[in-house]
Amino acid sequence: MSKKFVYMFSEGNASMKNILGGKGANLAEMTLLGMPIPQGFTVSTEACNDYYDKGQVIDQEIVSQIEAGIVNLEKISGKKFGDTQNPLLVSVRSGARASMPGMMDTVLNLGLNDISVEALAEKSGNAKFAYDSYRRFVQMFADVVKGIEKSYFERELDKIKEAKNVKIDMDLTKEDFKEVLTKFKAIYLEKLGEEFPQDPRTQLLESITAVFRSWDNPRANVYRRMHDIPSSWGTAVNVQMMVFGNLGDTSGTGVAFTRNPATGERKIFGEYLINAQGEDVVAGIRTPKPISTLQEDMPEAYDEFIAIANKLEQHYKDMQDMEFTIEDKKLYFLQTRNGKRTAQAALRIAVELVDEGMITEEEAVMKVDPKQLDQLLHPAFDQAALENSQVIAKGLPASPGAAAGKIYFTAEDAKEAKDKRDERVILVRLETSPEDIEGMVAAKGILTVRGGMTSHAAVVARGMGTCCVAGCGEIKINEEEKTLIAGGRVFNEGDYISLDGSTGNVYGEDIKTVAPEISGDFAILMGWADKIRTLKVRTNADTPNDAKRAVEFGAEGIGLTRTEHMFFNEDRIFQMRKMILSTTLDERKAALDKLLPMQREDFIGIYEAMEERPVTIRLLDPPLHEFLPQDAEAIAALAKDMGISILTLNEKIDSLHEFNPMMGHRGLRLAVTYPEIAEMQTRAIIEAAINVNKNKGYKIVPEIMIPLAGDAKELKYVKDIVVATANNIISESNSDIKYMVGTMIEIPRAALTADKVAEEAEFFSFGTNDLTQMTFGFSRDDAGNFLDDYYSKKIYESDPFAKLDQEGVGQLIEMAVKKGQSTRPNIKLGICGEHGGDPSSIDFCYRVGLQYVSCSPFRVPIARLAAAQAVLNNK
Amino acid sequence: MSKKFVYMFSEGNASMKNILGGKGANLAEMTLLGMPIPQGFTVSTEACNDYYDKGQVIDQEIVSQIEAGIVNLEKISGKKFGDTQNPLLVSVRSGARASMPGMMDTVLNLGLNDISVEALAEKSGNAKFAYDSYRRFVQMFADVVKGIEKSYFERELDKIKEAKNVKIDMDLTKEDFKEVLTKFKAIYLEKLGEEFPQDPRTQLLESITAVFRSWDNPRANVYRRMHDIPSSWGTAVNVQMMVFGNLGDTSGTGVAFTRNPATGERKIFGEYLINAQGEDVVAGIRTPKPISTLQEDMPEAYDEFIAIANKLEQHYKDMQDMEFTIEDKKLYFLQTRNGKRTAQAALRIAVELVDEGMITEEEAVMKVDPKQLDQLLHPAFDQAALENSQVIAKGLPASPGAAAGKIYFTAEDAKEAKDKRDERVILVRLETSPEDIEGMVAAKGILTVRGGMTSHAAVVARGMGTCCVAGCGEIKINEEEKTLIAGGRVFNEGDYISLDGSTGNVYGEDIKTVAPEISGDFAILMGWADKIRTLKVRTNADTPNDAKRAVEFGAEGIGLTRTEHMFFNEDRIFQMRKMILSTTLDERKAALDKLLPMQREDFIGIYEAMEERPVTIRLLDPPLHEFLPQDAEAIAALAKDMGISILTLNEKIDSLHEFNPMMGHRGLRLAVTYPEIAEMQTRAIIEAAINVNKNKGYKIVPEIMIPLAGDAKELKYVKDIVVATANNIISESNSDIKYMVGTMIEIPRAALTADKVAEEAEFFSFGTNDLTQMTFGFSRDDAGNFLDDYYSKKIYESDPFAKLDQEGVGQLIEMAVKKGQSTRPNIKLGICGEHGGDPSSIDFCYRVGLQYVSCSPFRVPIARLAAAQAVLNNK
Repeated sequence: MSKKFVYMFSEGNASMKNILGGKGANLAEMTLLGMPIPQGFTVSTEACNDYYDKGQVIDQEIVSQIEAGIVNLEKISGKKFGDTQNPLLVSVRSGARASMPGMMDTVLNLGLNDISVEALAEKSGNAKFAYDSYRRFVQMFADVVKGIEKSYFERELDKIKEAKNVKIDMDLTKEDFKEVLTKFKAIYLEKLGEEFPQDPRTQLLESITAVFRSWDNPRANVYRRMHDIPSSWGTAVNVQMMVFGNLGDTSGTGVAFTRNPATGERKIFGEYLINAQGEDVVAGIRTPKPISTLQEDMPEAYDEFIAIANKLEQHYKDMQDMEFTIEDKKLYFLQTRNGKRTAQAALRIAVELVDEGMITEEEAVMKVDPKQLDQLLHPAFDQAALENSQVIAKGLPASPGAAAGKIYFTAEDAKEAKDKRDERVILVRLETSPEDIEGMVAAKGILTVRGGMTSHAAVVARGMGTCCVAGCGEIKINEEEKTLIAGGRVFNEGDYISLDGSTGNVYGEDIKTVAPEISGDFAILMGWADKIRTLKVRTNADTPNDAKRAVEFGAEGIGLTRTEHMFFNEDRIFQMRKMILSTTLDERKAALDKLLPMQREDFIGIYEAMEERPVTIRLLDPPLHEFLPQDAEAIAALAKDMGISILTLNEKIDSLHEFNPMMGHRGLRLAVTYPEIAEMQTRAIIEAAINVNKNKGYKIVPEIMIPLAGDAKELKYVKDIVVATANNIISESNSDIKYMVGTMIEIPRAALTADKVAEEAEFFSFGTNDLTQMTFGFSRDDAGNFLDDYYSKKIYESDPFAKLDQEGVGQLIEMAVKKGQSTRPNIKLGICGEHGGDPSSIDFCYRVGLQYVSCSPFRVPIARLAAAQAVLNNK
Repeated sequence: MSKKFVYMFSEGNASMKNILGGKGANLAEMTLLGMPIPQGFTVSTEACNDYYDKGQVIDQEIVSQIEAGIVNLEKISGKKFGDTQNPLLVSVRSGARASMPGMMDTVLNLGLNDISVEALAEKSGNAKFAYDSYRRFVQMFADVVKGIEKSYFERELDKIKEAKNVKIDMDLTKEDFKEVLTKFKAIYLEKLGEEFPQDPRTQLLESITAVFRSWDNPRANVYRRMHDIPSSWGTAVNVQMMVFGNLGDTSGTGVAFTRNPATGERKIFGEYLINAQGEDVVAGIRTPKPISTLQEDMPEAYDEFIAIANKLEQHYKDMQDMEFTIEDKKLYFLQTRNGKRTAQAALRIAVELVDEGMITEEEAVMKVDPKQLDQLLHPAFDQAALENSQVIAKGLPASPGAAAGKIYFTAEDAKEAKDKRDERVILVRLETSPEDIEGMVAAKGILTVRGGMTSHAAVVARGMGTCCVAGCGEIKINEEEKTLIAGGRVFNEGDYISLDGSTGNVYGEDIKTVAPEISGDFAILMGWADKIRTLKVRTNADTPNDAKRAVEFGAEGIGLTRTEHMFFNEDRIFQMRKMILSTTLDERKAALDKLLPMQREDFIGIYEAMEERPVTIRLLDPPLHEFLPQDAEAIAALAKDMGISILTLNEKIDSLHEFNPMMGHRGLRLAVTYPEIAEMQTRAIIEAAINVNKNKGYKIVPEIMIPLAGDAKELKYVKDIVVATANNIISESNSDIKYMVGTMIEIPRAALTADKVAEEAEFFSFGTNDLTQMTFGFSRDDAGNFLDDYYSKKIYESDPFAKLDQEGVGQLIEMAVKKGQSTRPNIKLGICGEHGGDPSSIDFCYRVGLQYVSCSPFRVPIARLAAAQAVLNNK
C-alpha cells in the first residue's frame, strides 16, 4: 500500500501536528469535538518533504490522493468543482508544525472560473459578491502562485474606484466588479502570456505547489533561523471548503483570543469586520471593530462564539487564537491554535491557569518560551526624561516596551543603519508585510499607520519582543520623500523619535530608556522553575554594577569576569601600555605594580556585590596589541608620554602585529611569556578576597580561570605560578582564604586531552565562542562575509555562534566532560560562552552533565527557565 | 629494598641503554667482552630524573649508592680517594640514551687536591704531568661545575707561556705548571669567594650534579628538539678511573672510526695526539695525526687497537666510533658507540654490511636515519658556474654538500641574518663550540680555521647534513673586526663565499648550486625499503617540473596540487584580479573563461609528467585578498588597467580585508559563494584529463580535492557542483574518463563528523598543517612569537608543525579514519600536510591505517625509507 499523504479533517486529531501541521491537526480536533468547521483535507508535511526530495515535483501518488480528497469533499458538500449549479469553492492555506504567522501564503475562493462565478452569483443571489470573490481569487492566485506583484491589481482597482468616485471597495457595484475582473484577467494575460486557468484542479495543484514552494522562500528561512525551526519539518497544506464573510451585512470575519495576548488578562479579546473576507482583518487595510460589539451586531453568533471559545480553551488548556467567519449569520471556526503572546501575558496566563486548576506548575513552566523573557528585560522610559516629553501621536499599544531611535522608512534602510552604523533604529511603515522582516529584526521599535492589534506588524513585533505602535492614523508619512508628519512637525529620515509600545504613545525626541522592574507573575513562575532546575545559573559580569543587576535577576554566581575590560579605563590604559612596551622585566614589573591596586579594587567591588556567591575570574586574555593606540595622533601622544621616539613606538607596535590575532599570542600564552602578569593578577584576586573577608566577613573562594589552555603541561606551568603566588600571599597574611584554579576549555586540543588537563584544573568552563571558532575553523569576525551564503544555500540552518553546534562542538564538550571526570571525578563543570544563555544549548548542557551555565545578566532569567525546561524535557 | 641507581660496569650490558645511557651500557658490554676498560660505575638515568623530580636535589639514597660505588672502585683499583700514596682519580662524563655529542659536560682528573697531586707526582715520577693534570682539573671543574669562563684561565696560561717564551703548553716545566696551578686556584677563589674544594667526595657530587644540570641547558634542549629526544629520558653519569694520555711521549689519546664516517669506506679512520688528554683531540686546539701513523709511533698498541676495533664492529654489527687512551704504551678503550656518519656513508655502510653477510636487508633499512637522506638531496655546485670560480682556500672536507651565502662571524649574527632577513648564511668561526649550535642550525655552510674531521664543527655539521669545511688554516679571521682574509682578499661581514664540503674548497663568490644526482647504494637501499613498505609515497607538486623531479625520487603519485600558485603567474594574475573584483556574475564568468585554458594547460602538463600515476588536485584555497596588490603604486596600476577608480578599487580591497584570514573566506567557502570558480576548475581538470587521454593514451583518474570542509552538507553542496560539471563535460565529449571527489580533513569539525563527511567524500587527505593550527588554536605565522618560550620552559619539546602531535591532532586523525571507514569502508586515506615527510609522523600514519603519505619532492626518499621502517618498527 502506498503511503498516506492526504487526510480528511475527520481522519486526524490534535496529536498529529508533525504530519498535519498545527492548523490541520487542530481543524481535525475541532471536527472531532463537533464544532462548526467547514470540512476539508490536509496534504501532509511528508508530502512537502517528498516534493523537495524529488527536486520540487509533486509525486503522482500525491496528486491522486489530492484528487480523491476533492471527490470526498464533493460528496460531503454535495457541491462539485467548477459546477455550473453548485460549485465547490475552497481555500488553500499553509500550516506548518510550528506556527509561522505571515510567513506562508494563502489562496481563497479557489474553484471560481468564468462558469462557476455565474453559478455562485445565482445561488447566493449576490452577483456583486460573486464577482468580488472571483477578482480576489485572480489577484491572490496571480500574486501567491505566479509571483505577479499585487500593486498592478491594486492600481487598477484604485483607478476604477476613482472613475466611479467610490472610496471603499464594497461600495462598487456588481458591474464595477465585473469590469475589475476583466481588467485583472487582462493583467494576468499580459504578465504571464497565458490565460487565467479555468480548470479548478489545475488551480488547486498549482496553489498547493505554491504553498510548498513558499516553505523555502527567504522570509520563511529567516523566520525559521530566528525560531530554530528545522527546514526538514516541511509544511502541510489545508484545503477547506469556503465560507464567506463577504456575503453582505449579515456576514463577517474575525480573529480573537480567549485572553488578552498583550497583558494576559482573562477576557475575550479580538476584532472583526462585517462583510469582509479572510485576510482583510489582519492586513490592516480597514480598521476592524472590537469583538465586544459583535454582541450587538449578531447576538446569537456572538453567544455561540463565546461558548465554543471557552470550550476550546478548556480543551487545549491554553489561551486560544481563533479565526472565524460568519456567513449569513451562521458561525464557522476556521482555525484555533495556542495564541502568541507577550512575555508579560505568557507569565500571567501560565500563573493564572495554575490558579484556575487547569494546569500544574510544571506545565506552566513549559508554557513560557524562555527567549520571550527577554522582552520583560527590555528598557522602559526613564520617568524623569519622560515628564519633559510631548506626545506627538497615539496609536495602538501593539507590543510592549519602550524604544527610541532614528527613523527609517524602508526595511533595507533600517537594516543598513543597524548593520553598518550600529544605529538605534525605529522602522516607520504605512503597514508592514512579510518582506519587511529583516528591517523589523533590525529595529528597536516599529511604528505603523494602518492595521490593528492583530496586524502583521503587531503579531510579528510581539513575537520578537520588539516595541510596536500600530494603526497610528494620526501621523502622515511620505515613503518616497522619507518624511513623517506628526504633531505639526516634520521628521526626516534619521531624526529621532521614541515609542511606548505599552501605551501607544509616540514622542518626537530621543528619550532615555531604563531597565525594567519585574515581579509578580514573573517571580512566581521563576520560583517554580527554580524548584525544578538542577543547573545553577551564573552570570558573565565585569563590574560590580553588572554583578548586582545579575543577582537581582537571580544569578547564583559569576561564571566569567573578564579582567581585560578593566584595563581600557582611561586612567589605566597608560600603565597598561607602559607595561606592554617595557623592554625589561623591571620596567614591566614597575608598570604592573601601578596596575595592582586598581585591579584589587575591581575585585573587591565585585566580591562585595556578589556577597558569598562564587566568582570566577579569568586572567588576561586578549593579545597585547589590542591595548595599543592605532592612529598616528594617538601614537604620537603616547610616545611623548612615554618619552620614547615615535619610530621606536611604531617598531614595537609593528612587532606585536599578528596575522591571525585570534590564534595568536593571547590567553595563557601571555602568562607563559610574561609570568609577572599572571602574578600581579593573582595577587590582586587573593588580596581582594582577604580584604573583603576582613572588612565584610564574606568567605570568598575565588575561582581563578586560566584561559586558552591546549595542553596539560602548558596549563601546569601557569597554574604553578598562580598557586605559588597565591600561597605566598595567604601564608604571609596569615589568612585561611581558599581558592580554586581551573581553565577554560576553548581550544579543541584541550577537549581532546581533557583527562590530562583535568589533572591540573579544578574546574572546566567551556568557552564555546572560541571553541566554536576553532572547531569550525572560522572566525566570528570574518564569518559574516560568507555565512549568509550558507543560510541561503541551506548548508547551515542556524548561527553556530548563537545556537551550540551539538554535533561537532558538542561532541568535544561531551568528550571533555567524560575525560575530565575520568581523572578528576569531582571536577566543577560550567559554560561561559554566549551559548550559556541560549535555551537549546542549555538543554544540551544539562544533558551532558554540566553543573552551571553562565550568561549575560539580562539572559539570567532565560537561563533559569530554560534550565527548568531542560529537566522536564528530558524526564 | 631501595631502587638501584648506581651500577658497576661489571653489572651492566649493552641492552641497558635506557638506564645506563649509551656510554655506560657500552662500557659495561666491553667489560663483559674482557676488553681493556678502566673500571668504574654508572649513575643511572633514573637518578637524573629523580634529581629533577625532587626539584634539582640528589636524593640521599643516591648519594649513598655513589659512595658505595666509590668504595667498590677503591677496592678494585687498590687506590683511595684523596690518598697520600696512591690516590684514586676518576673522570665524570655524561652519557644519555641517545648520543648527544658535545652537548654534555665532562670533568677529568677528579680526585686531585693539594695532597694527592704530590702523591701522583711521586707515583708517576712525573711532577710536570701531575701539576698539568691538576691545573686541567681546576679549570674544568671551575668551568663545567661552577660556570667560571674558561677564558680567565686561558689568558693566565697564555701570560705565563709568553713570560716563559714557550709556544706549546707541554713545553712548560713542572715549576711553570705549579705557578699556573697557583694562579688558577687564585682565580677560582676570586671568582667564587671560596677555595677550590679539596674533598674528592665533594668534587664528585658537585660534578655529578653538574652533569645532571647540563641535561637541561639551552644547547641540550635545542639539540633534543632537533633530534626528537624527550627530556624525560635523562642522562646517566659515568664515573671511571682515570688513565692518562698526557704521561709523556709513550702516552696519547685518540678517536677513531672502524669505517670512514664521511664516505663509508671500509678502512679504519681516526686521529690521535701524543702526550695529550681527553678533550684535546676533539677540541681542535692542536691538529692531530692520522691513525695510520700510530702504527709507527706505537706498533703494539696499534695492533691491539685494530684487533679490538674489528671485534667491536663484529659485535655491534655496525661502524664504531671509539675513544682510546694509551698510558705509557698500555691501550685503554674509553668508549665505543655506533658512529655518526654522513648519509652517503650510512648508505654505503648499510649496503656493504649486507654484502659482508653481517646484517639482513631489513636491518640495513633500519640503520639509515631517513632524515639524513636530506643531505643527499642537498644542492651541489653548478659545474658551469664552478669552472669560472677560483679556490681561495682549502680546508678539511668535514661534511659534504655545497653551500653559498653571506659570511657571519658569530652564531648570533648568523641566526639573525637567517631568521630576520632570510639570508643564505655561511658561519665562519675560528673553531665552533656547543654555544654556537643555533648559529650552526641557521647556516647553509660552516667554515672553521681550526680542528680536524672529528672536531665539534665537523661532527655537528655532519649530523645536521650541513656543508662544512673545517681546519682551514690558510684563512685568517678577525672576529672582532669581522673580516676574513683568504687568497689575498679581504671579505667583510655580509660578503659572499661558497663552500664545498666534499672537497674542502672555499670560493670567494656566490656560486650557483644545483640539485644532486643520486644512485648506487641509495638505489639499492631504497629498493629494499620499497619491498618492505606498505604505505604509498606521493608528492606535493604544483608544476610539471616538480612532478618530474618527484617521480625521479620515487614518488608514486601526486597527493596535493595547489591550484592557487598557478594564478600568481604574471600573465594570469590580472585575470585573477579581474575575477575577484567582478561586481556581477557575468563579469566574473568572463574572467574565469580567460583563466580556463591556462589552468587546463597546467593540468595537461602535470598529467603528462605523472603519466598514469594518480593526481590529486585541490580547488582554490586561499582567501581572495591574497591575490590583490598591496602597495599604492600597484593598486593605481591595477585600477588603470581595469578602468575603475582607485577609490573603488581600494573600497573593494578593504571589503575583502579579514581579521583572521586563516579562519576566513577561503577553501570550499569560496566555492559556496562563487560556485563558478569551482565549475571552471573542474572543467579544466576534466578537460585536461580527456585531452591527455586522447593525445597520449594515458588513463587519468583525477582526484578532485575540495579543501576546508567542516560539515557534510557544506561538502555536498560543492561536490554536487563539481560532479554536475564533470559529468556534463564527460557526456558531452563522449568520454569514459573516471574521476574521484574527496576532501581535505583539516578542520577539527570534519574529523569529529567524519562519518557523515565520508558519505560525500571518496577520499580523505589529512591537511595536518591547518589541522594542527585549529586543534592547538594557534596560527603558524604567529606562533613563532611565543613557541620559543614554550621550548625554553619545556612545555613543548618539539614543533607541532614539524612533528605531528599524536596525542591531540593524532587523536582527531584516528577518529576521522575510524568514522570515515564506518560509512565508506573503502575510503582512500592519505596525508598531504608537511608531516607527510617526517619519519615519526609517517610511523603514526602507518599505524592508523592511512594508505599513502604525500610530501615535497625532496622528502620523497625520506618518506619511502621511513615508511619501510614503520613496518619494521611495528612488527
